[in-house]
Amino acid sequence: MSTTVHRVRAGYVDTDQSGVIHHSVYVRWFEEARNAFLRERGLNFVDLEHHRRIGVAVAQMNVRYRRPVVFDQEVDVHVWVGQLKNASLRFDHMIESEGMRLTEAEVTLACIDLDRKRAIRIPDEIVRCCQPSAGT
Amino acid sequence: MSTTVHRVRAGYVDTDQSGVIHHSVYVRWFEEARNAFLRERGLNFVDLEHHRRIGVAVAQMNVRYRRPVVFDQEVDVHVWVGQLKNASLRFDHMIESEGMRLTEAEVTLACIDLDRKRAIRIPDEIVRCCQPSAGT
Amino acid sequence: MSTTVHRVRAGYVDTDQSGVIHHSVYVRWFEEARNAFLRERGLNFVDLEHHRRIGVAVAQMNVRYRRPVVFDQEVDVHVWVGQLKNASLRFDHMIESEGMRLTEAEVTLACIDLDRKRAIRIPDEIVRCCQPSAGT
Amino acid sequence: MSTTVHRVRAGYVDTDQSGVIHHSVYVRWFEEARNAFLRERGLNFVDLEHHRRIGVAVAQMNVRYRRPVVFDQEVDVHVWVGQLKNASLRFDHMIESEGMRLTEAEVTLACIDLDRKRAIRIPDEIVRCCQPSAGT
Repeated sequence: MSTTVHRVRAGYVDTDQSGVIHHSVYVRWFEEARNAFLRERGLNFVDLEHHRRIGVAVAQMNVRYRRPVVFDQEVDVHVWVGQLKNASLRFDHMIESEGMRLTEAEVTLACIDLDRKRAIRIPDEIVRCCQPSAGT
Repeated sequence: MSTTVHRVRAGYVDTDQSGVIHHSVYVRWFEEARNAFLRERGLNFVDLEHHRRIGVAVAQMNVRYRRPVVFDQEVDVHVWVGQLKNASLRFDHMIESEGMRLTEAEVTLACIDLDRKRAIRIPDEIVRCCQPSAGT
Repeated sequence: MSTTVHRVRAGYVDTDQSGVIHHSVYVRWFEEARNAFLRERGLNFVDLEHHRRIGVAVAQMNVRYRRPVVFDQEVDVHVWVGQLKNASLRFDHMIESEGMRLTEAEVTLACIDLDRKRAIRIPDEIVRCCQPSAGT
Repeated sequence: MSTTVHRVRAGYVDTDQSGVIHHSVYVRWFEEARNAFLRERGLNFVDLEHHRRIGVAVAQMNVRYRRPVVFDQEVDVHVWVGQLKNASLRFDHMIESEGMRLTEAEVTLACIDLDRKRAIRIPDEIVRCCQPSAGT
């Protein structure tokens, strides 16, 4: 319930000449997984951004790379809310394949009033669907 | 005068596991070169987009890859206006290194009224700095 | 049978400040679709590359962008073999959403002997699963 | 001497629909800056990888995003060695523009024996040019 699992497949463009997936690619996968998490819980992100003029910005990102991912490999990105505070929301991520932990990441988001260009508290519609959970 | 030469260096992230630069990376280089071309000629792209609400969209892109580029290689992206019509502007590109042609590309742009979401004729400030030239 | 349909969802990272998906992103989608095509037909691309030392390089790419794709939109990338010659293989692509053609592309591939670094004829295992078809 | 400053210009492709540079782009900039650091100190990375079969992998990455970067902005990526241990090498990065700190990052690398696929101690040629310094 409180964790979303988002499956991705590593593409050829995602490889580098060392023969594994480049470390920058995971950042895209984490974001995809967070968007899948919010979509599953009915959060209308586009509505938030376009009509309420609230943006979501990454404030901090910590990633630990344990084992590589290779071309064409399918991996599961687990994502859940690690911490919810007044002005920040931390998503925790774990990439796993066949029972092995490959990568872990914490990404802390802040909300922005897009017109006034300043941080605001996390709005209620996000708080409602982002209660912290124990994770994976 | 009528050609801008934009130097880029291939990054590690730009490689793929075949050991050369991935074909998608060149698309970024062509765009960088076009932006350098417009900047050199005093076109305020941000002004166009934010204040006049005119956007520039890619309508067509043709690329011919002749020889590969490798990690850490510096190459020159030549860019010039190939064709200017009422409603479209074609930039031609040639990537070269040590006298060898590596890649050629034609990218045709259209201008968009961002509020009405429809194509418009190329605005005068672009026409002024984008007269076609014979190329390289 | 002869066309593969590969569904993708546009990510936030794929947008640009004009509010639509950047034209470079489609290049990744076309490649993903081609890999899905080959996978469906049992082609072991990794085997080709690692054991037989045959690489696949993009020689030409033509893309026509008709209508934009926006964040979180799901679109279908149709891919089929447009032309098969001794030394080249052209895949045709069409991106579609709700019955509307959004994008069309032709991508011509060549095969490379990775050790001798030169073009070779398309190997039999690719020829077998890449007979041209009428497309979409 | 012990810090390298690598200037980058934010591209249009690097923006997202919130109007600023997407957080994943910085990961590429940090890598570019590290490669500039090593190049300046005479390290032949290609030689290390191809001839000595030693690869460099990112083991951990921590990024703190303080202020956004916008399209066409030029920023300076400062990079220096934060910590050097037997089996790991931490680069510290700071992105700055007009005297303002925009972003900070720590990226910890490990070295890999590419044939045996296991971590090895940092080789001497890297140790020689990567003594820790106080940073910026």
